[in-house]
Amino acid sequence: MSEERIIALDAMGGDHGPTVIVPGAAEALSRRPGISFLMFGDQARIAPELERFVDLQRRVRIVHTPHAIAMDDKPSQAVRRGRNSSMWLALEAVQKGEAHAAVSAGNTGALMAMAKLCLRPLGGVERPAIAAQWPTIHEPSVVLDVGANVGASARQLIDFALMGACMVRAIRGVERPTVGLLNVGVEDIKGADEVKQAHAWLRQTNLDLPIDYRGFVEGDQIGQGVVDVVVVEGFAGNIALKTAEGTARQIATYLKEAMTSSPITKIGALLAKSGFHILKHRMDPRRVNGGTFLGLNGIAIKSHGGTDAYGFAQAVGVGYDMSERGLLQRLAADVEAFHGKLEGLPKD
Amino acid sequence: MSEERIIALDAMGGDHGPTVIVPGAAEALSRRPGISFLMFGDQARIAPELERFVDLQRRVRIVHTPHAIAMDDKPSQAVRRGRNSSMWLALEAVQKGEAHAAVSAGNTGALMAMAKLCLRPLGGVERPAIAAQWPTIHEPSVVLDVGANVGASARQLIDFALMGACMVRAIRGVERPTVGLLNVGVEDIKGADEVKQAHAWLRQTNLDLPIDYRGFVEGDQIGQGVVDVVVVEGFAGNIALKTAEGTARQIATYLKEAMTSSPITKIGALLAKSGFHILKHRMDPRRVNGGTFLGLNGIAIKSHGGTDAYGFAQAVGVGYDMSERGLLQRLAADVEAFHGKLEGLPKD
Repeated sequence: MSEERIIALDAMGGDHGPTVIVPGAAEALSRRPGISFLMFGDQARIAPELERFVDLQRRVRIVHTPHAIAMDDKPSQAVRRGRNSSMWLALEAVQKGEAHAAVSAGNTGALMAMAKLCLRPLGGVERPAIAAQWPTIHEPSVVLDVGANVGASARQLIDFALMGACMVRAIRGVERPTVGLLNVGVEDIKGADEVKQAHAWLRQTNLDLPIDYRGFVEGDQIGQGVVDVVVVEGFAGNIALKTAEGTARQIATYLKEAMTSSPITKIGALLAKSGFHILKHRMDPRRVNGGTFLGLNGIAIKSHGGTDAYGFAQAVGVGYDMSERGLLQRLAADVEAFHGKLEGLPKD
Repeated sequence: MSEERIIALDAMGGDHGPTVIVPGAAEALSRRPGISFLMFGDQARIAPELERFVDLQRRVRIVHTPHAIAMDDKPSQAVRRGRNSSMWLALEAVQKGEAHAAVSAGNTGALMAMAKLCLRPLGGVERPAIAAQWPTIHEPSVVLDVGANVGASARQLIDFALMGACMVRAIRGVERPTVGLLNVGVEDIKGADEVKQAHAWLRQTNLDLPIDYRGFVEGDQIGQGVVDVVVVEGFAGNIALKTAEGTARQIATYLKEAMTSSPITKIGALLAKSGFHILKHRMDPRRVNGGTFLGLNGIAIKSHGGTDAYGFAQAVGVGYDMSERGLLQRLAADVEAFHGKLEGLPKD
């Protein structure tokens, strides 16, 4: 069942470099036996990590480079001076067709800048976006843009909807995902004209988009999993994502303090250990690790910089699934069809 | 200690009308004995509720009106046709100087539209904002704008900072509150020029603002309580607030499912009951009930429509404290001083 796919890894990216990337690759391979890897980075640091993973060794080709992008390098500098870096070379492997997807746990800004430059926007797509998987009380939703750009036109928002739908198709196998536009609840709020225009277009059933548009959603509905894809421009999207992460951490702090507030609560918490285990699993950010750059001529995934092997393997899995299910081809066709139909429509 | 203050109440607002507003007023009076009330609404519905509260009866004057704004009335309609409504009359009492603050649990959009029209923006303030109290692991922060408008200029963002600071001074007695500008973490993100300009101005120490500016904050830092005031334009602000609420609800669902997942976890949860009590208290949205319309010539507070007497009393308390501590006078002076100093500055 598992097709052959080559994933290019920036082995030097993230807080831990090869000590997490290599075990992460091994974990990903155990889940999807069709993967093989191109690992870009310092051979002297990668090779010792590989020793523990016999199965992986046969599926890895190391491409040595001594250059790495630092977590605090400015994106503009990285782009100018980083053409021999492990990050750039991983993306370039995708651009040259030597790999099906690139995964990096490195500097987000640098990765985004490099990915745009190296992979270029997909035909018809004005603006790439970063999509995040968002845990909900049902299946995870896809939320985009979570930070590639500030602001988005109505047309760009609909491109985002099509991109997000393709991602849901790839990672969850849902053919016609439900989509909502993130908006604010106050009815007569001024502005957000792009959101209203996108809403009007999405309501035009004769556009015949490959999505099931459900209208506006508000911030408190994301976690309820009311739609598969939540569309929003990048400033509010990034703030929403970070706010949700922060709130989860805040409540975890409250919970810990509450459960250690007396000897009795401590005993209770001990007895309820398996329950807290379930909770921890459901709130585990590693399960949805992997921000995806959508709308480029190639698949590029950003793993969280501080994740471990389990989390990194998740990000690799997202890249694999998106490639295996032909996300790019489908997305290009969807965007072209939408833009074609849009030409014939009135502006309201 | 408790000064005489008159609070105008829209007794018909919210999901429950006088059955919550009247007990809420009683609760507020028990906390701040200096309050008296003007209650606007249907005498026949208010009077029976008052019977239970002997102390309150002496502190209430009912102003009868049979008209009320419905929760689903459009703001534009409400403004045109609602001049005899309990909501408008409560605001008008503030405008006429008959009350120190107005509190309504009614239709947010209508209240905002009416408040702007009736109370008018404070001299120098271009744009009013809605401020929310945001629970953090330390003291609650004030976040604004959470939905009065989409977008904000650099100058408006700084007005928001001054407004939020005045609110923190009023409700927490902090003379020089810390302030952060909400921004996204990706370094080279395009756009958000207003945020960058506001940041540059706030760094100008010679503006000598009555705040302690701490720079940018990200969404995940709000709940950590890193600053007293978080400033953001209304679209992203509203989404952030709703997202935090939704995430809290989502985790509460997880927790409940986890604690009922086996007989042992149920026993553990029972033993840890006092801990869960603490948790529930800390996560209780009623404690921070009361969205404040800032930047108007008068104090108007929006209570959550579905809250109970405890929550409504919190909103009343916010209105009382803001009035007692002279928020409006201070705010007007701060804004004027800032705008005066701004004139002399270069644009960058």
